[in-house]
Amino acid sequence: MNSPTATLLVSCPDQKGLVAKIANFIYSNGGNIIHADQHTDFSADLFLTRIEWQLEGFNLPREVIAPAFEAIAKPLNANWSLHFSDTLPRLAIFVTKQDHCLLDLLWRKQAKEIAAEIPLIISNHPQLQPIAEQFGINFQHISITKETKPEAEAQQLELLEKYQIDLVVLAKYMQIITPEFLEKFSKVINIHHSFLPAFAGANPYERAYERGVKIIGATAHYATANLDEGPIIEQDVVRVSHRDNVADLIRKGKDLERIVLARAVRLHLQNRVLVYGNRTVVFA
Amino acid sequence: MNSPTATLLVSCPDQKGLVAKIANFIYSNGGNIIHADQHTDFSADLFLTRIEWQLEGFNLPREVIAPAFEAIAKPLNANWSLHFSDTLPRLAIFVTKQDHCLLDLLWRKQAKEIAAEIPLIISNHPQLQPIAEQFGINFQHISITKETKPEAEAQQLELLEKYQIDLVVLAKYMQIITPEFLEKFSKVINIHHSFLPAFAGANPYERAYERGVKIIGATAHYATANLDEGPIIEQDVVRVSHRDNVADLIRKGKDLERIVLARAVRLHLQNRVLVYGNRTVVFA
Amino acid sequence: MNSPTATLLVSCPDQKGLVAKIANFIYSNGGNIIHADQHTDFSADLFLTRIEWQLEGFNLPREVIAPAFEAIAKPLNANWSLHFSDTLPRLAIFVTKQDHCLLDLLWRKQAKEIAAEIPLIISNHPQLQPIAEQFGINFQHISITKETKPEAEAQQLELLEKYQIDLVVLAKYMQIITPEFLEKFSKVINIHHSFLPAFAGANPYERAYERGVKIIGATAHYATANLDEGPIIEQDVVRVSHRDNVADLIRKGKDLERIVLARAVRLHLQNRVLVYGNRTVVFA
Amino acid sequence: MNSPTATLLVSCPDQKGLVAKIANFIYSNGGNIIHADQHTDFSADLFLTRIEWQLEGFNLPREVIAPAFEAIAKPLNANWSLHFSDTLPRLAIFVTKQDHCLLDLLWRKQAKEIAAEIPLIISNHPQLQPIAEQFGINFQHISITKETKPEAEAQQLELLEKYQIDLVVLAKYMQIITPEFLEKFSKVINIHHSFLPAFAGANPYERAYERGVKIIGATAHYATANLDEGPIIEQDVVRVSHRDNVADLIRKGKDLERIVLARAVRLHLQNRVLVYGNRTVVFA
Repeated sequence: MNSPTATLLVSCPDQKGLVAKIANFIYSNGGNIIHADQHTDFSADLFLTRIEWQLEGFNLPREVIAPAFEAIAKPLNANWSLHFSDTLPRLAIFVTKQDHCLLDLLWRKQAKEIAAEIPLIISNHPQLQPIAEQFGINFQHISITKETKPEAEAQQLELLEKYQIDLVVLAKYMQIITPEFLEKFSKVINIHHSFLPAFAGANPYERAYERGVKIIGATAHYATANLDEGPIIEQDVVRVSHRDNVADLIRKGKDLERIVLARAVRLHLQNRVLVYGNRTVVFA
Repeated sequence: MNSPTATLLVSCPDQKGLVAKIANFIYSNGGNIIHADQHTDFSADLFLTRIEWQLEGFNLPREVIAPAFEAIAKPLNANWSLHFSDTLPRLAIFVTKQDHCLLDLLWRKQAKEIAAEIPLIISNHPQLQPIAEQFGINFQHISITKETKPEAEAQQLELLEKYQIDLVVLAKYMQIITPEFLEKFSKVINIHHSFLPAFAGANPYERAYERGVKIIGATAHYATANLDEGPIIEQDVVRVSHRDNVADLIRKGKDLERIVLARAVRLHLQNRVLVYGNRTVVFA
Repeated sequence: MNSPTATLLVSCPDQKGLVAKIANFIYSNGGNIIHADQHTDFSADLFLTRIEWQLEGFNLPREVIAPAFEAIAKPLNANWSLHFSDTLPRLAIFVTKQDHCLLDLLWRKQAKEIAAEIPLIISNHPQLQPIAEQFGINFQHISITKETKPEAEAQQLELLEKYQIDLVVLAKYMQIITPEFLEKFSKVINIHHSFLPAFAGANPYERAYERGVKIIGATAHYATANLDEGPIIEQDVVRVSHRDNVADLIRKGKDLERIVLARAVRLHLQNRVLVYGNRTVVFA
Repeated sequence: MNSPTATLLVSCPDQKGLVAKIANFIYSNGGNIIHADQHTDFSADLFLTRIEWQLEGFNLPREVIAPAFEAIAKPLNANWSLHFSDTLPRLAIFVTKQDHCLLDLLWRKQAKEIAAEIPLIISNHPQLQPIAEQFGINFQHISITKETKPEAEAQQLELLEKYQIDLVVLAKYMQIITPEFLEKFSKVINIHHSFLPAFAGANPYERAYERGVKIIGATAHYATANLDEGPIIEQDVVRVSHRDNVADLIRKGKDLERIVLARAVRLHLQNRVLVYGNRTVVFA
């Protein structure tokens, strides 16, 4: 089970024989499937699958798998991606001043709950630099004003390229990512401190308190050009009562934020999330 | 413990000595307090309390308690109400065509989970009449169109008066209650089939599906002139996944709706809910 | 999507090519797979799958599917079963005096949440007969004492045969089913009013209260010869506090019991539950 | 609200006038009550209360409050304790090799979620010393074998005295605390990695997996002479499925453990937990 595996994520218009065709591709090349999940969205007429098999004993060399599968995928009009479990994705974490989500991700990496390299932390404030140093991670302080934002984002993108980053995690990065940035780098997971779509935008805990809700939540989603409206990966909630003031909501919410963000990042890194339209399929 | 009790709900500007004053009123008249809850909202500078004591051995006759307490409450600028546990509140349930919340409430009354009389069911459709009959409850079918709404609401209010109704429960009553109605009868609990403030308004399950949320909810609140914005009494949630289509969300939501509504009605009937501004204190 | 479907449940020793072989069987006969789930338990070296496809357009007549699949299954040493979505399973509900789980199941059948026939209710007490009558279901009162138990169970088994029952649901049936009964009729789902394995056996709410737990639960499981130790299908929990006495635990527990039991029955009826050893795979 | 407060925890046989007497004591000395909670356990005939008031403006000097209240408490046969919010309790954390609960508690102290001094970490293994150093906390490695246990506990108790420890937190300390230790130092909170009373004792996740439960939990409780049977302070749970192997249960459980332990420690430090018999009242 711990030998390296390959994972295919595929989505394509629904038609007969898709499971058979993909399974046959792997079986006929000697692969042993260890996980296979399918979902059909009938309203979208879309078939989505995640299939993982052991590379040991698989007859195709790694570099041939993709071109070989393309021959099957093309006639199906499929979107697909291929991942190897022993190629660690590279993360950059964007933060501002709050440390709870950052520390939580770094702890989980240390505990091997998250399988990734984390070579880079970027912040618009210098406060969290000591944490980066403690974990031996490069920390880049890029301050941002309304005027310098384009330039700051250019710098960020340059760093992402330099560090060959695969995924950006906004770990309480209290800045809006512009559509221009996302056009150039689109794999961005954000944690929003509310149960979206409730309390999108600023100050969700204050507004949750004002509204007198009895449950608060947190939402991890892919960042898109429309703020707080990207495809949701994971949500969770916790009960509050009249005894909880705004500070209590913030405190309780921090536990949600770090757990929900960590789950979403882990699911993404395990290639368990497929996006279509503004929705996700999560093969958990 | 099963002897009758009196319950005082009090809210007033915060000041020293409130707990002592109210407790002394009961103790000095020979009362045995069995539950006492307080809450101070420091931002609103408001003190709220619920205090329940046994009437057995209490020296004041029932009809004297209110005037005697008014002497204490007036100098405190207090809002307060007095309730006796053996005076059953009278409920009217408003429904349309869905039966799950109605059946659930009637069953809970039968099972003595809800201590109330339910002499009246009002609906804008005739479908649920057989259920009313089965439980021996008067069923009034008052159909509503845009034009007849004022007249229909006048009829409803007349019935509420005739049946001496204390509380109206909107058990999936798919009609908006007008501000004019609420001005004349304000004790109205509604169940909204979403985790408010998310998906206020129509078709929440469809919209939850569209948004791709991973958790859905239900909200019981007091009806106010602003649709779906009244003080929240209770909420609960359930996880959903990409495997759940709109019909699944509706099905899962129905379980939430009946449980959340039942809890809210029970809390209200036990005089555990105090409203201030657009918020509630729930002494559960 | 609403045309009839066939569902195969298969479990067999793990080996290469299982997904491909089963998918090919369906595809090569013109079937359109609408759901496919797999699970491999590596510690048990077992492959389990549930696969559902549309019968419309499938080339094999219904009566030929099973023998045709047996040709594939036999060399794999597979346990398997085949189900058609338009063949409604037949339920018998066993009850004692409590009505909440019974009513809940009957409501759900009425609301089409549960796709089954319910021709028979059996009880060791007469109290719930009126509910059976109201829903037009045959009610059999078979009283049970220590001495008459073998005879009573014989009567029950006779009724199950007469009514061609596929599944027995113990809806708060406060009697132990003997191993002898289960040998003759093994498809039995029970609801236990605790979060198993905590508080197996009698009086779980009293014991939960005594232990001072902060959360209580309910567990739906298949009945086996070892009381309260059968394979778990579904569990859920609810928070309690020091303010909840035993009666409150019972009341809160009743909501859990009916929801957990209903979910388990629905999952079973949709052929989403596979049992192996003392565990279940639930393809929900 | 941020001025120092005093908190009284009182439990005594139930009788009339308790709320009034205690409230009067505070009011007559010029105190402003900011929180007051009561609970009566009718089966135990016990009254329990937590009352917190502002010291600013209170007429009694701190050192006089206790003797003055004793004059009231004695005739009531009350157990009571008095706490000042600006006297920080002193914690010792016992660990073995796992760092997640330790890191979490230290981070929460830093984030001011936990108001306490943490001058001492004791472990039977050296692995976590670097964490202690990083936070500037004294780390004492006391290895334990069956033979050296009495001696090791004597050393531990000596350290607790030297460091004037008020509360010991067992943060995944995989050793049994002997009754002899607890006789000398009884304020000990333990985190057990299961939903007690299910899976008390060793290897709870392995046993939860074997049993095939659908939900796992964690329990924080006061340590007593009977292993895993002390009064429960807090519990929480998370869903698992057939896709989760033992390693997944352990990973999911770690999130529960740190949150449940942190909540329990915080509740204890805020003097919100009263113990009677084997139960707790938690005024949260």
